[in-house]
Amino acid sequence: MSDVVIHPVTVRYMEIDAQGVVFNGWYLTWFDEAMATFFTARGAPYHAMIEAGYDVQLVHSEIDWKAGVRWQDAIEVAVSTARVGRTSFALDFEVRRDGAEVTCAGRTVYVVIATDGSGKRPIPPLIAEALGEPAPLH
Amino acid sequence: MSDVVIHPVTVRYMEIDAQGVVFNGWYLTWFDEAMATFFTARGAPYHAMIEAGYDVQLVHSEIDWKAGVRWQDAIEVAVSTARVGRTSFALDFEVRRDGAEVTCAGRTVYVVIATDGSGKRPIPPLIAEALGEPAPLH
Amino acid sequence: MSDVVIHPVTVRYMEIDAQGVVFNGWYLTWFDEAMATFFTARGAPYHAMIEAGYDVQLVHSEIDWKAGVRWQDAIEVAVSTARVGRTSFALDFEVRRDGAEVTCAGRTVYVVIATDGSGKRPIPPLIAEALGEPAPLH
Amino acid sequence: MSDVVIHPVTVRYMEIDAQGVVFNGWYLTWFDEAMATFFTARGAPYHAMIEAGYDVQLVHSEIDWKAGVRWQDAIEVAVSTARVGRTSFALDFEVRRDGAEVTCAGRTVYVVIATDGSGKRPIPPLIAEALGEPAPLH
Repeated sequence: MSDVVIHPVTVRYMEIDAQGVVFNGWYLTWFDEAMATFFTARGAPYHAMIEAGYDVQLVHSEIDWKAGVRWQDAIEVAVSTARVGRTSFALDFEVRRDGAEVTCAGRTVYVVIATDGSGKRPIPPLIAEALGEPAPLH
Repeated sequence: MSDVVIHPVTVRYMEIDAQGVVFNGWYLTWFDEAMATFFTARGAPYHAMIEAGYDVQLVHSEIDWKAGVRWQDAIEVAVSTARVGRTSFALDFEVRRDGAEVTCAGRTVYVVIATDGSGKRPIPPLIAEALGEPAPLH
Repeated sequence: MSDVVIHPVTVRYMEIDAQGVVFNGWYLTWFDEAMATFFTARGAPYHAMIEAGYDVQLVHSEIDWKAGVRWQDAIEVAVSTARVGRTSFALDFEVRRDGAEVTCAGRTVYVVIATDGSGKRPIPPLIAEALGEPAPLH
Repeated sequence: MSDVVIHPVTVRYMEIDAQGVVFNGWYLTWFDEAMATFFTARGAPYHAMIEAGYDVQLVHSEIDWKAGVRWQDAIEVAVSTARVGRTSFALDFEVRRDGAEVTCAGRTVYVVIATDGSGKRPIPPLIAEALGEPAPLH
């Protein structure tokens, strides 16, 4: 349950900017896709959350870039639970090149909200079980 | 009513790809924004369409690129009505650099649909008046 | 040599717009990625073209949308050679859902240019062999 | 010199995701454009940096989202110098709606590098003067 989930990324040519590396804005997009992969792998796919009446909303992100990533680099994003609170939780992300070098490390915090617009909700069992025990990457 | 509408574009650094010019995929985004400016300028802003129960859906596009566009080039998109049918209409777009050189020419075709999901609709007066007499750019 | 090449696409959540379907601008991005997959599958990966002194430039695109695509739909892009000229060639694309329904059909035209900035070039054997005999999809 | 620089943003329809608000990944794009506006307003436009042999590289970002932003909301990004170090500096960003409500607050850290690929550089006078005295927004 607490294993790191790996989300493979194919770098798009259009994500490369004039400096020859992936533009920084795309990392949050990669993390968003990696989060979906994470919850699906942990048994709580997004549609199941929505059907159960819950959605998640990004409220905070922190990213450290250590190296640029180029087109056709072999990239994957590792995802792990960093923290579980009452109505919020945090995920850790590592962008890894060639299965080893960490080129970028990120942490994002989400709050659980009701899909009916009524605001924050305590983390329901479906999401709590998917998150499992925290195992921060950094 | 049949004047060309001008939509200014600020080229984003991240729209530049590894070839040093705006990646082709962004042109449809620019045309989409230019369409919104066009309908607002012609008295049919998008929210008014939606409130009246109508939406528009892209069904066809054709684009010709003549030159690449670079970061901080002075760019605008000219928009004009190309054709008005019963349930569909076409708009013409020109990407102009320095108010003169046409670097890209596009035409897009939209159908009018009902917002209640019931499908195509004849073009309502709100949209027909905004389109005015066709004045194709190419 | 003339088989259709299949490029799988994972629809990104952020590609979905307020209408609940993939925003039209992303299709050219998908086609760009599918083109890279096509040339790699046909033995002419992009880096080999560049090393040989050739690059390709998009000069024309035509797209027909038949249906919207939603998040987590099973999508692939089929690519085939549509036409081979002296300095230009065309590729056909089909966006297919569940391996069957064609939701979108596109054709793009590219010119071959020299990487040294000296302009158009006749299609070199590397690219001609990758393109093979034209087999238009539409 | 230490005044906040205001960068206006036109929310693009395609930046809205299926939740009806701007997708989180676009904020780093907005900050990137706002940074360019900031340095231009402070007398160090990007091309002048490049011509002087300097470039800047994002190494860290932190973002707090307080409210979602919708299409056609009146949005601007305020930029101010947060910190000036020896080879790095930080900028503060606030996304403001209707000139008042802060919907999102961000801080990004950049290092100054040489354009010749030789790595980090002490902040040159051109950039130091543009940054001025730190005046953090948060």
